[in-house]
Amino acid sequence: MNNILSQINYPADLKKLTLNQLPQLASEMRKFIIDVVATKEGHLGASLGVVELTIALHYVFNTPNDKLIWDVGHQAYGHKILTGRKDVFYTNRQLNGISGFPKIDESEYDAFGVGHSSTSISAILGMALAAQLKGDSDRKHIAVIGDASIAAGMAFEGLNHAGDTNANVLIILNDNAIGIDPSVGALKSYLTEVKEGRNPKANNMIQALNFEYSGPIDGHDLPLVIAELKRLKKKTGPQFLHIVTTKGKGLKQAEENQIVYHAPGKFNKETGDLFPKIEDNLPPKYQDVFGLTLLELARKNDKIVGITPAMPTGSSLKYMMEVFPERAIDVGIAEQHAVTLAAGMALDGLTVFCTIYSTFLQRAYDQIIHDVALQNIPVIFCVDRAGLVGEDGATHQGVFDIAFLNAIPNLQILSPKDAIELRNTLFTLQLDNKNPTVVRYPKGRSNQLNWQLPFESLDFNKVENIRKGNTIAVFTTGTIYETVLNCIEKLPNKELFSVFHFIQIKPFNKDYISDIIKNHKEIIVVEEGSIIGGFGSVVSQYVTELHPNVKVTCLGVPDVFIEHATVLEQQEICGFSENKLIDFFSKY
Amino acid sequence: MNNILSQINYPADLKKLTLNQLPQLASEMRKFIIDVVATKEGHLGASLGVVELTIALHYVFNTPNDKLIWDVGHQAYGHKILTGRKDVFYTNRQLNGISGFPKIDESEYDAFGVGHSSTSISAILGMALAAQLKGDSDRKHIAVIGDASIAAGMAFEGLNHAGDTNANVLIILNDNAIGIDPSVGALKSYLTEVKEGRNPKANNMIQALNFEYSGPIDGHDLPLVIAELKRLKKKTGPQFLHIVTTKGKGLKQAEENQIVYHAPGKFNKETGDLFPKIEDNLPPKYQDVFGLTLLELARKNDKIVGITPAMPTGSSLKYMMEVFPERAIDVGIAEQHAVTLAAGMALDGLTVFCTIYSTFLQRAYDQIIHDVALQNIPVIFCVDRAGLVGEDGATHQGVFDIAFLNAIPNLQILSPKDAIELRNTLFTLQLDNKNPTVVRYPKGRSNQLNWQLPFESLDFNKVENIRKGNTIAVFTTGTIYETVLNCIEKLPNKELFSVFHFIQIKPFNKDYISDIIKNHKEIIVVEEGSIIGGFGSVVSQYVTELHPNVKVTCLGVPDVFIEHATVLEQQEICGFSENKLIDFFSKY
Repeated sequence: MNNILSQINYPADLKKLTLNQLPQLASEMRKFIIDVVATKEGHLGASLGVVELTIALHYVFNTPNDKLIWDVGHQAYGHKILTGRKDVFYTNRQLNGISGFPKIDESEYDAFGVGHSSTSISAILGMALAAQLKGDSDRKHIAVIGDASIAAGMAFEGLNHAGDTNANVLIILNDNAIGIDPSVGALKSYLTEVKEGRNPKANNMIQALNFEYSGPIDGHDLPLVIAELKRLKKKTGPQFLHIVTTKGKGLKQAEENQIVYHAPGKFNKETGDLFPKIEDNLPPKYQDVFGLTLLELARKNDKIVGITPAMPTGSSLKYMMEVFPERAIDVGIAEQHAVTLAAGMALDGLTVFCTIYSTFLQRAYDQIIHDVALQNIPVIFCVDRAGLVGEDGATHQGVFDIAFLNAIPNLQILSPKDAIELRNTLFTLQLDNKNPTVVRYPKGRSNQLNWQLPFESLDFNKVENIRKGNTIAVFTTGTIYETVLNCIEKLPNKELFSVFHFIQIKPFNKDYISDIIKNHKEIIVVEEGSIIGGFGSVVSQYVTELHPNVKVTCLGVPDVFIEHATVLEQQEICGFSENKLIDFFSKY
Repeated sequence: MNNILSQINYPADLKKLTLNQLPQLASEMRKFIIDVVATKEGHLGASLGVVELTIALHYVFNTPNDKLIWDVGHQAYGHKILTGRKDVFYTNRQLNGISGFPKIDESEYDAFGVGHSSTSISAILGMALAAQLKGDSDRKHIAVIGDASIAAGMAFEGLNHAGDTNANVLIILNDNAIGIDPSVGALKSYLTEVKEGRNPKANNMIQALNFEYSGPIDGHDLPLVIAELKRLKKKTGPQFLHIVTTKGKGLKQAEENQIVYHAPGKFNKETGDLFPKIEDNLPPKYQDVFGLTLLELARKNDKIVGITPAMPTGSSLKYMMEVFPERAIDVGIAEQHAVTLAAGMALDGLTVFCTIYSTFLQRAYDQIIHDVALQNIPVIFCVDRAGLVGEDGATHQGVFDIAFLNAIPNLQILSPKDAIELRNTLFTLQLDNKNPTVVRYPKGRSNQLNWQLPFESLDFNKVENIRKGNTIAVFTTGTIYETVLNCIEKLPNKELFSVFHFIQIKPFNKDYISDIIKNHKEIIVVEEGSIIGGFGSVVSQYVTELHPNVKVTCLGVPDVFIEHATVLEQQEICGFSENKLIDFFSKY
């Protein structure tokens, strides 16, 4: 059966096939993807949806000379399989294996590294304009972008510029009406009207932006897609092809339950069924501590509003959205808008919880400074996936947030140590919060099974002395405290070490630190974030000015991008896994 | 003559006027604005263009209960004059005077603080959704946004969400075909077609986003604007009014030379003429050192490309745009796109200089991390207005860039000390640059009249020992070195102080600092940027770990937003003006 794919390693092999062989190849590619992802985990639905498009693009265009960018990259598994990485595809997202996303130093066929959404139009236009300047009028430049990603502001900026040029760019809108969660917004409604023929093509937003528009066509009709790409290949100037696909195509469960099968974890590759859940016996994910607590609080406090940019499921805001749809809003991939919308609502007296992954908060940095902090508006930012994120790798690490937030005046930055403290932090903030506040918490599960205890109000200014020692004060913030504590308890010299948990990174508790210094000779700061600009940098700055003679050592994420691996492996690389900490502390 | 405006202090006074009196008021307001701006400086053209709209809005709507947001805020002088600030308008942009922008703690009529573009739609939608949740269906929510600002991605995100709601928002597009420089992009072309009747209204981008669209109408026709606002006031759901105005309206020179009269400096209030330029006798602005040097380099190196997001004039990229229009690109207000476009071009082998003001670089933070630094693409970012910016105030300070950039791996951060060093930095980078690089330089003029000397290649890793002393090592980076040096030369104890200029903030030169420490007992770091996360924080972190006993003190911008004033006044507030430094150093 699997006799065509076995012959294909590169697009040159693909080009030797007849048109008639391609549907069989599509079928084999789907099976290959399903088989590997079922056991190795990864993103499934997006790649299944573009198998035909992937084949057609490499069949028609002259990659890698022609430039091809997959927006976000969740859908690029087929692309990887057809461009030299079939045999290592089983190493997907593992340490030293291939990345889950296109990556320029992994393959010359990956024209641009991706991970965050909506970058492809800008990048491909840059290459197309470069080709013009170099006098290369033959090279083609293709970006494939989904309907959720094209709604982000950055994509509009790219379209607005591209439409004003005569660059050879082909933007392919892969319209499946879903990102990770279903697409939202007026543009989505508009695209739906277009697909359903209810909106005359004359009233065309894309044409208004000066693109030649074609479509919508069925993206699973291989001969049709190939014919259309061949036609468009001959054209010059900005082209736009609208194709309609089904996310999860070819696996019944993935088509029917597109949210779950976006990244389903391990599943039965024969039946497609998920393995039975054992979540009832596990401590909660931090995202659920947020999502379930927020719902609980929202039932009693009708001023509470929740906002997510396109992550209802991933942030667990979905729990509140189901019960209070008016008060919990998915704004789509629009982090900038999400933050300033939150500012408007909070300025009008509502208690706004805006939840954004740390890595995506980078998209809204100016809005946090200019629209929120500068006006001292008490928006509560719930920053999920703060710290190391594991298999998603370098593009998604949540390791910069302390560094980029700490310099912003008026901001309060909180990093609870466990599920219960996160829960009580949310409770306390909705009681009375006067300042813009960031609450950061990691990806993954807490280890507190019994976390839904009665609420307690917290004093964030209080530093918790978790362990008393006699020489060295270890400062931690966030959930890494537990690794630190476990490590110290195993040390032969453990009597040396005190451990202090700072839930509040900013404002910085100078007085308390001065007190600690009276009883300790040295400070070690451990944090799950960039060493440069991190909590440790503020400690160092304070101590070296007012208490020179006290040594401060900072452990955290070093000044390199941390690639895909498990979180534990990444902690090992960074030097603050339990093993590495034991090595470090036992030298004292 | 000035008999109507003298009776008007608040919108309640305005509402007592008859329709017939309003054109006279408009005329008086224009004269008032011209008279004050002619002597006190400020933004002129934008406010002259919306005098009629400003009167009409406060005449028709019930401000401040109805919420009114002016996008960017350059055009809000008339609004300030009609809302209680006429008598203090002469203090505009001065220390302790009114802000040049709407500001929530200045007036209840300023519904949202602005300064950066394209925030108004998100903020007004937040307020409108808040009103819905609170059951207030009467309150109206108006945002006025220009055609340059509405092209930014953030505005699209706001429209995309607003069109998907039934919120009571009225977005007024003030279409004058210019921002600070003329508008660009496909949307601008589209709007021009609409205005000129060449695009049928049926093909309407705004309607596609589910807004009710009306216009375009003449924004200087007061009765027409008032009638249209009255009609729209009765409507519910998302409304969009397209008005056409002339920037600088009512002052001939301002209408004819809209770029210069955006913020013309002092001018003759009777004739409107600018005062004769004396620039030939002054040292260059840093922006011109960039712009003129880049043109000079581009003549010899055809790989050089320049990119600006909507600041051809402000960044002085205009010099290169005039000579090499294909190679110097204004992408409009689209910082995110600008950065990723630069990444695409640089990855394809071009030498890309992307110039963005420090404060606006905040808009592209994620793109710098994810699209440039992570892939180690050697884009050269020329970060203008780095440091204190004076009269534009808190919204525009360039004081966070070191803090938010320093934690990004692969990045090189350079801060030349003067015009000649900036010039040679640009020369050196275009010769051979392997990493993404940031060059930061301040607003205002250098003091090197004779700066266009033959190019010299620089070794960025070299720390310059500008002054030799015997006890205290003063570290500076960027142009502040001169203030530091001037101050020290005036000290009675000046023999204590060595001065070291670090052109390269990152990578951090540890070895050199270890050498310095051998000959000095203490370090003082002075920088024009946030103390938290600044250059000093990295020095502190290094020294306190490896050389405890050496005290490090950091001077820079403290942890508050620095409001409008002159740059010298702001330096005084921050504690690193020459006077403050003399006080500080003389204690040693």
